[in-house]
Amino acid sequence: MFRRIVAAAGAAAVAACWLAGMAYAPQAHAEDGYDLWLRYRPVQAERTGDYRAQAAQLVAAAATPTQAAARDELLRGLAGLLGTAPRLSETVTRDGAVIVGTPSSSPLIAKLRLHTLALGREGYLIRSVSVEGRQATAIAANDDIGALYGAFHFLRLLQTGQPLQNLDIRESPRVKLRVLNHWDDLDGHVERGYAGASIWDWHKLPDWLDPRYADYARANASLGINGTVLNNVNSKALSLTPMYLEKAAALAEVFRPYGIRVFLSARFSAPIEIGGLETADPLDPEVKRWWRAKAGEIYRLIPDFGGFLVKANSEGQPGPQDYGRSHADGANMLADALAPHGGTVMWRAFVYSHEEPDDRAKQAYSEFVPLDGKFRDNVMVQVKNGAIDFQPREPFHPLFGAMPKTPLMMEFQITKEYLGFATHLVYLAPMYQETLEADTHRRGPGSTVARVIDGSLHGYALTGMAGVANIGADRNWSGSHFDQANWYAYGRQAWNPSLEARDIAEEWVRMTFSNEADVVAPVVGMMMGSREAAVDYMTPLGLHHLMGRGHHYGPAPWIEGGPRADWTSVYYHRATGEGIGFDRTASGSNAVAQYAPPVARRFGDLEQVPEQFLLWFHHVPWDYRTRSGRPLWDELVHRYTRGVDYVRQMRETWRGLDGRIDAQRHAQVAAFLAIQEKEAQWWRDASIAYFQTFSGRPLPAGEAPPAHSLDYYRSLEFPYAPGDGR
Amino acid sequence: MFRRIVAAAGAAAVAACWLAGMAYAPQAHAEDGYDLWLRYRPVQAERTGDYRAQAAQLVAAAATPTQAAARDELLRGLAGLLGTAPRLSETVTRDGAVIVGTPSSSPLIAKLRLHTLALGREGYLIRSVSVEGRQATAIAANDDIGALYGAFHFLRLLQTGQPLQNLDIRESPRVKLRVLNHWDDLDGHVERGYAGASIWDWHKLPDWLDPRYADYARANASLGINGTVLNNVNSKALSLTPMYLEKAAALAEVFRPYGIRVFLSARFSAPIEIGGLETADPLDPEVKRWWRAKAGEIYRLIPDFGGFLVKANSEGQPGPQDYGRSHADGANMLADALAPHGGTVMWRAFVYSHEEPDDRAKQAYSEFVPLDGKFRDNVMVQVKNGAIDFQPREPFHPLFGAMPKTPLMMEFQITKEYLGFATHLVYLAPMYQETLEADTHRRGPGSTVARVIDGSLHGYALTGMAGVANIGADRNWSGSHFDQANWYAYGRQAWNPSLEARDIAEEWVRMTFSNEADVVAPVVGMMMGSREAAVDYMTPLGLHHLMGRGHHYGPAPWIEGGPRADWTSVYYHRATGEGIGFDRTASGSNAVAQYAPPVARRFGDLEQVPEQFLLWFHHVPWDYRTRSGRPLWDELVHRYTRGVDYVRQMRETWRGLDGRIDAQRHAQVAAFLAIQEKEAQWWRDASIAYFQTFSGRPLPAGEAPPAHSLDYYRSLEFPYAPGDGR
Repeated sequence: MFRRIVAAAGAAAVAACWLAGMAYAPQAHAEDGYDLWLRYRPVQAERTGDYRAQAAQLVAAAATPTQAAARDELLRGLAGLLGTAPRLSETVTRDGAVIVGTPSSSPLIAKLRLHTLALGREGYLIRSVSVEGRQATAIAANDDIGALYGAFHFLRLLQTGQPLQNLDIRESPRVKLRVLNHWDDLDGHVERGYAGASIWDWHKLPDWLDPRYADYARANASLGINGTVLNNVNSKALSLTPMYLEKAAALAEVFRPYGIRVFLSARFSAPIEIGGLETADPLDPEVKRWWRAKAGEIYRLIPDFGGFLVKANSEGQPGPQDYGRSHADGANMLADALAPHGGTVMWRAFVYSHEEPDDRAKQAYSEFVPLDGKFRDNVMVQVKNGAIDFQPREPFHPLFGAMPKTPLMMEFQITKEYLGFATHLVYLAPMYQETLEADTHRRGPGSTVARVIDGSLHGYALTGMAGVANIGADRNWSGSHFDQANWYAYGRQAWNPSLEARDIAEEWVRMTFSNEADVVAPVVGMMMGSREAAVDYMTPLGLHHLMGRGHHYGPAPWIEGGPRADWTSVYYHRATGEGIGFDRTASGSNAVAQYAPPVARRFGDLEQVPEQFLLWFHHVPWDYRTRSGRPLWDELVHRYTRGVDYVRQMRETWRGLDGRIDAQRHAQVAAFLAIQEKEAQWWRDASIAYFQTFSGRPLPAGEAPPAHSLDYYRSLEFPYAPGDGR
Repeated sequence: MFRRIVAAAGAAAVAACWLAGMAYAPQAHAEDGYDLWLRYRPVQAERTGDYRAQAAQLVAAAATPTQAAARDELLRGLAGLLGTAPRLSETVTRDGAVIVGTPSSSPLIAKLRLHTLALGREGYLIRSVSVEGRQATAIAANDDIGALYGAFHFLRLLQTGQPLQNLDIRESPRVKLRVLNHWDDLDGHVERGYAGASIWDWHKLPDWLDPRYADYARANASLGINGTVLNNVNSKALSLTPMYLEKAAALAEVFRPYGIRVFLSARFSAPIEIGGLETADPLDPEVKRWWRAKAGEIYRLIPDFGGFLVKANSEGQPGPQDYGRSHADGANMLADALAPHGGTVMWRAFVYSHEEPDDRAKQAYSEFVPLDGKFRDNVMVQVKNGAIDFQPREPFHPLFGAMPKTPLMMEFQITKEYLGFATHLVYLAPMYQETLEADTHRRGPGSTVARVIDGSLHGYALTGMAGVANIGADRNWSGSHFDQANWYAYGRQAWNPSLEARDIAEEWVRMTFSNEADVVAPVVGMMMGSREAAVDYMTPLGLHHLMGRGHHYGPAPWIEGGPRADWTSVYYHRATGEGIGFDRTASGSNAVAQYAPPVARRFGDLEQVPEQFLLWFHHVPWDYRTRSGRPLWDELVHRYTRGVDYVRQMRETWRGLDGRIDAQRHAQVAAFLAIQEKEAQWWRDASIAYFQTFSGRPLPAGEAPPAHSLDYYRSLEFPYAPGDGR
């Protein structure tokens, strides 16, 4: 099983290294992925002339750091894309000028009277204009940061091969707070991180500012990400001590020109651990005073500090319930400390009790719905897309739509816990889109999750989306080249939750690999089916939470025992000789009742439930006839196999792109796809071997038996699988 | 204290990032340190013509992987250095040919009859020759690996600006085994590593071979390093399981063409932990059988496996003494398992007992000298340079010269535990040289440590030198640009222990930064005094082991208590109101008696002891008159201050090189020097504040008082300082 599989891939990697390892000549310039989607390699030859004519001159101030960032990015980008940077000019002196700015930074922009006001602080427009008879492109905004976003958008037009004539683009974000959550520990470990160590070099901060910090900010700004939570939600109080606040402040200073505000995960018990108090009771006056003082201290160092993210009374973290108080009591106390400074509390709804014997999927709803309306104005409740935990597929979280008086933030994962880690090509945007398009029916049909998140359904004053980052010290940032697409897609969908996963994929492929149609189409094709394939080979038909204990690497549907039932696999699949699945209808845990009645009816009815959620909501006999006509057992095996086949097909497609993608990145993707195929097969085989002991049914005709015995699969141990929690 | 010190340096770093972060044009090509000393940037203009004439044609076979490595390196190197690669040719057809090979790989080399035999397997010669009337350079060896070493040497001539005429170079290594010890854990942590995570991606091995592995091999081969121990001496038995052996085998395959053999640290209790045995007693037949089988299994996967490195009965590691057996019993049992395959055991002498109340400095000698002559032929005993543990300065280990019948290997540290970690510029070659030149007097004057190590003193059949690597996943490999020099110098001195630290520094600076005299001289100057400066600001006059507990970061001479006395600081400095220092003369622990009589007399005599070891061997009153005429207390303060001043001077020198070194590397070094100055000051101030409580004496005139109170220094805590053990 764990033998070296593709000698060819290994050899190719070595060969690639020979060619590209230490580049000594321009033509050998290695593509190692560091540049992300901001590679700025020369555009296709047939477009160069036109683009050069449309971007021949740059009129852009650099009086503020953000203005300088926009101007420098345009110079860098255009120089790379067109082979020559446009001339900087104070005024428009020829056709093809690009004018960047705000009415206050640029007299030219002011004179154009472009009706920017409705764009808000972060919006921008890009419009083809005429300036004293000369043709020009205006990138205009109300604020420097909008102009920077516009500059990245303008560059994206060239990067994706769009025409630059007759432009009339207006963009503003539909979600106000677009943040990355870094689950980065202070010792450099990244929980659920598969891209190496943390990029934050806490030990050398604040004195050494790695150039990578600025590139991180550029990449995020290119997507409109405007906030970053630096430390793990499983946090240490130490992050709030002066020594660490100065380190965070140094990062904030690097990020500020790019419109990115720093947030910190706050440990609820910090007043005890670093404040010397006896309690962290949120109603205790000393505790309140301590947090007020702490907020003041932070804002003195970081004037635009964003606020706190809090994981409280969840998986062993301290919280207000330790003192008999509610989540609202805890959040409001912190919110009061931040309010004078304009800060926000992001309070996580990912809670499930150690004592509560109820279906884990129900607990967040049960705890939070009664608190609706009880939170301060500057509190947001951050809700994962599904009610369990970042599974390959989950129905939307029942909290969405159920708290009309409390702004709910989305928490998506960008990193791939439960999704194959770095080596599995799994494009997550279809998963994001699936959740965002789900209809809660809370205010009638069309009450989508997206409309909860963008605030339009309930009129939230605050809106936000968080992505658990997949960023690490690996040279290519995300551990694999394709995982960069998940960072990209998250950022794009946070800006506009209505964007289509396919459009984002195409944009990303064009920027990251090639604008050639015969590269774009197959790569987008691979990506678009990849998440469904992962669902198939890991947890088809609504199965969930069947992975190895702790590290969550590989299949382990046999996990049972241990500290709590809902950390096992058997809790979730409930396989017996008769059938499989978690009955969450009225005859079971009745979790369906947490949804609006039309949704509850659909999910709760075996005839109506989408088959992708079949075993999420229903316990079904092995011979249950699925919609394909196949009995459940056969359908399960069919889907496992289909998932493996899809990966095999991706390998084939990728092999066909040899020579069309630079050698170094092609080799790594090829090697990772080989690992993915091996592990997809492992998931399929181990799962079938295990569930067959319950179903007692033969494999359908044509289905290969598992390569090894169930005992073999059960014997595998991976104590050093990456990203484990601590 | 821990405020952001140099806004200027930070800003410079950000600026450098703007310029170089994501290079988009050749002229902006960032120097991020990845290329190490193999940058192959164009030679000085005035030499190009001459060099091109001397390397116009390349005659080199590529029939074996090692031959291919040599040829490719020459093509890569010469293309970079000269702007154009030499023409490959089968024969010499013009002046300026470079002929590479062995008598069996190259008919041309064979015909030249160059008397290579005495060079041994790894040696080579580089000679200006005439081939049918055409002037050429022959790089000849007996074995492909010698030719590869010769190719690197030839490139070094160009890299350092040497003439290529009338070459007559003969080189062969004076030490047979030149190995790196990686203290890398299986989870990616590097014990005492300050350059990020481990470069071994165990999780993705053997399927994914990072191109970095081949660059690692190239860098090591360029120095003649021919072995690498992949895992921490504090090892896990898991490293010896099939899953991990296949991972190690994949690395061995990448390294093999470069002449690098893989070794593993072996956990002595592995037969119990992964073998299912009840005991690991080295005399137990089952245990012997288990290790023989294990060796067989390893050699089937890695036919050129080097052998085992073992840390046994030391700092809690299991070992033969757990069963009442000796180190020789343990080592010999493993040696017998490896012997049929040609493997070697490197058995560490870094032992000190949990029970033994004797001076820790004496324990290795006491345990090992009685075992001299009792080890198998394929066992080497690996001895740290000094008897404590990689302190900034230690007298040479008394074992050197004391085990004439047992091959002793040197263990130097390349990483900088106790030496300021990555941010302190401390060039270690003078320390290596100081140890190697030390005279043991064991066979009369001239019985240097170098002659023990190279085997000439005692006629050892095996010889070796180990360096504890400073390599990690940081882009520049070593955590700082200047720490690359320690890797470089270690490799060069392992090849030839007589090389001068200054010559190595000059070579390295020329290859790494510049061949311009007004850059080379000041940078070499900085490096050469840097280690003495670290001794001064940390532990002058023979003080030792005064750093923070566990992580060993920063000053903590006040450490006392805890599990064992010899893990405290007070154990070592023994300061009282009367004086300071560890009496290791006959009136004290009598550690001096472990040296040969002339050395023992010198070290043991207050009049004769080198002042740099004064407090290592003697407890001396505060008013003792040192050789400067200053009382001890004043001299101590003087040296602390001198160390800080040296760092300040290095910063000044480096500032003067602005514009002479590429911006990105210049900025990082500048920022690190600023940190070093701050921390040197911290060492001085904290040490003075503490020792003054004993001396009770005023600071000498002109000496600034500590910036903070002793309480302040004692209050500092660094729970996440990098590189801590686990």
